[in-house]
Amino acid sequence: MINETARITLAQRAYQLRVDVLRATTAAGSGHPTSCLSAADIIAVLFFNAMQFDLDDFKNPCNDRFILSKGHAAPLLYAVWKQLGKISDQELMQLRTFDSNLEGHPASRFPYHEAATGSLGQGLSVGVGMALAARADQLPYKTYVLLGDGELAEGSNWEAAELAHHYKLENVVAIVDINRLGQTGETSTGHDLARYQQKFAAFGWRVLMVDGHDVNALANIFTEAENCDPQNPVPTVILAQTYKGFGLDQTIENQPGFHGKALPKAGLSGILQELTKRFPGFNEPLPEPVILARTCTEQYHATQNASTYCAIESGSESTGPFPVRALRQASPCAKAPEDRQDERGEQDERAYQLGAPIATRRAYGEAITILGAHNPRIVCLDGDVKNSTYSELFEQAFPERFFECFIAEQNMAGMATGLALRGKIPFVSTFAAFLTRACDQIRMAGVGRVPLRLVGSHAGVSIGEDGPSQMGLEDVAFLRTIPESIIFYPCDATSTHACVALMSEHHTGVSYLRTTRAATPVIYPNETEFKIGGCQVLRQSPNDIACVIAAGITVHEALKAYDQLCAQNIFVRVIDCYGIKPLPEEALKKHAHACQGSVITVEDHYRAGGLGEAIAAALINDKIHMTSLAVDKLPRSGKPEELLAYEAIDAEAICRAVLESLRGYRAVT
Amino acid sequence: MINETARITLAQRAYQLRVDVLRATTAAGSGHPTSCLSAADIIAVLFFNAMQFDLDDFKNPCNDRFILSKGHAAPLLYAVWKQLGKISDQELMQLRTFDSNLEGHPASRFPYHEAATGSLGQGLSVGVGMALAARADQLPYKTYVLLGDGELAEGSNWEAAELAHHYKLENVVAIVDINRLGQTGETSTGHDLARYQQKFAAFGWRVLMVDGHDVNALANIFTEAENCDPQNPVPTVILAQTYKGFGLDQTIENQPGFHGKALPKAGLSGILQELTKRFPGFNEPLPEPVILARTCTEQYHATQNASTYCAIESGSESTGPFPVRALRQASPCAKAPEDRQDERGEQDERAYQLGAPIATRRAYGEAITILGAHNPRIVCLDGDVKNSTYSELFEQAFPERFFECFIAEQNMAGMATGLALRGKIPFVSTFAAFLTRACDQIRMAGVGRVPLRLVGSHAGVSIGEDGPSQMGLEDVAFLRTIPESIIFYPCDATSTHACVALMSEHHTGVSYLRTTRAATPVIYPNETEFKIGGCQVLRQSPNDIACVIAAGITVHEALKAYDQLCAQNIFVRVIDCYGIKPLPEEALKKHAHACQGSVITVEDHYRAGGLGEAIAAALINDKIHMTSLAVDKLPRSGKPEELLAYEAIDAEAICRAVLESLRGYRAVT
Repeated sequence: MINETARITLAQRAYQLRVDVLRATTAAGSGHPTSCLSAADIIAVLFFNAMQFDLDDFKNPCNDRFILSKGHAAPLLYAVWKQLGKISDQELMQLRTFDSNLEGHPASRFPYHEAATGSLGQGLSVGVGMALAARADQLPYKTYVLLGDGELAEGSNWEAAELAHHYKLENVVAIVDINRLGQTGETSTGHDLARYQQKFAAFGWRVLMVDGHDVNALANIFTEAENCDPQNPVPTVILAQTYKGFGLDQTIENQPGFHGKALPKAGLSGILQELTKRFPGFNEPLPEPVILARTCTEQYHATQNASTYCAIESGSESTGPFPVRALRQASPCAKAPEDRQDERGEQDERAYQLGAPIATRRAYGEAITILGAHNPRIVCLDGDVKNSTYSELFEQAFPERFFECFIAEQNMAGMATGLALRGKIPFVSTFAAFLTRACDQIRMAGVGRVPLRLVGSHAGVSIGEDGPSQMGLEDVAFLRTIPESIIFYPCDATSTHACVALMSEHHTGVSYLRTTRAATPVIYPNETEFKIGGCQVLRQSPNDIACVIAAGITVHEALKAYDQLCAQNIFVRVIDCYGIKPLPEEALKKHAHACQGSVITVEDHYRAGGLGEAIAAALINDKIHMTSLAVDKLPRSGKPEELLAYEAIDAEAICRAVLESLRGYRAVT
Repeated sequence: MINETARITLAQRAYQLRVDVLRATTAAGSGHPTSCLSAADIIAVLFFNAMQFDLDDFKNPCNDRFILSKGHAAPLLYAVWKQLGKISDQELMQLRTFDSNLEGHPASRFPYHEAATGSLGQGLSVGVGMALAARADQLPYKTYVLLGDGELAEGSNWEAAELAHHYKLENVVAIVDINRLGQTGETSTGHDLARYQQKFAAFGWRVLMVDGHDVNALANIFTEAENCDPQNPVPTVILAQTYKGFGLDQTIENQPGFHGKALPKAGLSGILQELTKRFPGFNEPLPEPVILARTCTEQYHATQNASTYCAIESGSESTGPFPVRALRQASPCAKAPEDRQDERGEQDERAYQLGAPIATRRAYGEAITILGAHNPRIVCLDGDVKNSTYSELFEQAFPERFFECFIAEQNMAGMATGLALRGKIPFVSTFAAFLTRACDQIRMAGVGRVPLRLVGSHAGVSIGEDGPSQMGLEDVAFLRTIPESIIFYPCDATSTHACVALMSEHHTGVSYLRTTRAATPVIYPNETEFKIGGCQVLRQSPNDIACVIAAGITVHEALKAYDQLCAQNIFVRVIDCYGIKPLPEEALKKHAHACQGSVITVEDHYRAGGLGEAIAAALINDKIHMTSLAVDKLPRSGKPEELLAYEAIDAEAICRAVLESLRGYRAVT
């Protein structure tokens, strides 16, 4: 229970949030004010009563986390951080302008964002990942996720709901702002809260229901949500019945047709006056923004025994207008995410025998297990294919850092984002084909500049009999689009191991490793060095008449072709372009020119957006001659070698391309 | 109730299915026999007792449909079609070989496939789409979807479940083969059928439960599933408790570790003998495959009043070993999918004024509405953004052919696949960014060669203030990877209208239209002709020193650049490359050479896999000089013109590129 003073203060804060949201969106001329207004009371009570966090140390590992899954309500998030004293009113009024950090949807440029959102239905997965991180580190924080009701149609939410149940995450609290209206009309469920209740209950959640515009009731329900039965640890959802545009007049409040529409500048002052009438405790003059900033400089490590933290209105034990409330206390066993232990040292542990047949997918599993021993921040996520991707090796070594996500790739990617944002180094591995299920989550990790590490196995037609549904053939094209992403596609165990190590140390964006189903011979000595955006020259002579650039499985086809051509006294350079992005452009140019300007690329991937196109774009102004071999036909089942031949990406196809190139060269010279 | 003779026959059929699955997968040396064995009884009862279809007319629009969502059980599907007499034992034994149509997972080459599957969690959406098509055409067929329990973790199932409830589709019956075991271990739910019951009930489905290995009980439950309360039309799910590998010995049956593992050739005969002991009614010799083919040549149109159809064991009214069972009767109002009415005629209805500002997204809405009047097969699907994509215009004209799918893009794409497979011409429109949610469904539509029509609006950074989460910047790269796909990216209303018409007549694969948020001036007269893989020359002279190739929004930037350059007496060719795939390669080469071999591409899309790379790959051997302008930096919120400038894809950037190219040219000559 909160006392009457606290109730009035919270209601006043909610009122001020509404005022600021309307002012900012009207100033911007766009945005989603009505979607903010339905959630204003929830946000006021969350930030000023329920959540516990160090206002002056946003990165404090004990802070409660808040994810705005309904990212279009971003102005509300900005408005609350204005009331918290961290951004100025002037900054708020720059909403959505080019030079502002306050973007249309929360993105990485806003310093108080927990996760980039704006594509709906992703926040709960991120929150579940953060809650798992808290569990792993024995940290006391709660993760709060505010969802819209419209986005509950996204199935990814139910993937997340099942996982939170599976892992008994009592430390995650979802709040659904059930304002009944989507963008274009009523949701399929409207205000039938009982249906939502049944759904969440069926997924094993504790369900609480509340009037989302009653700050007193909200404060009580958040208290209830915090106190979970330790004998029955389950996640909690609060279903808040709300009204879109709550606080505006009856032609807008709870009416369709106002989604994503800023109010006109002309009518704003009248609307704000009307708003004042709706909340009669808060007449003009509008309250000034209240600065709540407190000096709480203690860092996490120094404060495991500290009990008082930042300034939040409690009400229950109120001794003044801004009473001090305890930050959740970490257990003595807690590990802060920044307790890094990132030393390399695994290099010495590469111990592959030249020529030994080892699938790169297995080398991934072996590498991640060795790296995991050196770096406790590394965790693995699996989508029920761990014996195919070989992440099972990591599970066997570190079961407590392995998270089975079942067949639900969207949530797996979203959870990994949450884990990464809480300081973990998550590796997500599944079939490359099934990563297409999570393209939107990967895209949003890119928007959020999250160091999401993805490993796609069973790449290409070379998987053989399972057929096209299981073949990853578009993964490189998609992952190349992600800004700042890096991509590796190694051909043997040694290079795979090195690439996994490079990924584990790359903390500034999405990275991707493509692995192969078939066993391929080790071609690199253990001491070979590899780098981001690198390539290796495998065969060369002063008489090379063409430069064959391959990656992954086709490196071995190129080496076979080399042998066949050698027997005819034809010499080609063979390059293993294991670094697909960034592309080793300068090296490739140099080798192309050293091989009479004749380039042949060969890849087990669709032509569009693959290695060949990337190289063509890089070499377009180099006046070279290039033949690109790639997957052009819809594949089918068959033996790997039959399929490589069918798509003309095998050794024979490479020889044909070289001979044709030679004929062309002789015709010219 | 079935009689004892029918019961024994069905059990015998299930036994034969098991035998054939084991023989075929062992011969192939791969496949998923244990996943087939859990579902053998279900399939036997479905195909030989429950489903009604014309065995000799697979395309009969009254046929019940069957979708194998758990596509890895493909051998079971093939085995049942062997028992139905449509494929030979010899063909079955060629499973997974290169020349066989019997692929590892059902794909379009198997003539009796309803939908390509193999990426889990997609079948229910396809089935819901087929059920919607039945509703729309007043056809009597039921759609049966067999799911594995593991794949229920995919959230897309719950999207489909909600839609089936929303549209009260009593004509869809899902069967879940709950064998407890996924690929790598127990599912999150195991054999706790009550949890599944609660979930489906919460989503508004009628839930039936059955012992999935009791053919008598299965026959009864399918009868019950067929008979839905007309006062309360709801979809039905049958939860079948089964055991993975049912019929094999206790070291394999219901044991983990046998997913996707064919039994060894050496032990097969012994295993088949053991199998015989498990089913004591069916001793050696193994029953010969029973050919059930019947002569049922009546076509749909001739048989609306016919009451007898193909050969299926009923049991309830059995008069012989293969009694005749009635095919479901179509209502007199029924419309067969092949009642096509595809005449063009809409061309005359283009009536855009040159120079008028009309967003291409609006032109899409207008075009589809005009086309819809001519072609009743056209339907539209929306993900709660119809007022942004302008598909609301179609809804206003044809509400009965408009399907609101809410914010659930995976299911929307899957449903559209189902609608397309039942003869509809579905247009799926949402923000291009949110189509990334459905990449796996789009990929599988490609595998199935489904004429799925996608329209992505709000492409590129030019949407402005909403920020990167809402910007489609990877859509072209992804859609280009889909085999046989076609892509349009028009720049004005007239060309958009033409492209939509071309898509509506393109029935052989996935097609994609990219539209723009901003209003752009009409630049083409209404009578202009457009084609798949086409481009238009907008400006040209004999003195062109560069060829600027643009598409969509950047065409208008190129035209502005043209004007600015003209003022400096510099002439460039301007090409609108509205046909992105297939690329108009020959035309582009011709123009590149006519412009002194200098090409500038400019696109509002990430560099990787976009127009520039496609053109670079096409022109790599043409010894041209090319500058590609594309989105390289992670975008942000801001005004459209600020963002086009920030990414250097606006008129000024084009002018700079032309001038630089000119300097390079002068330096050389």
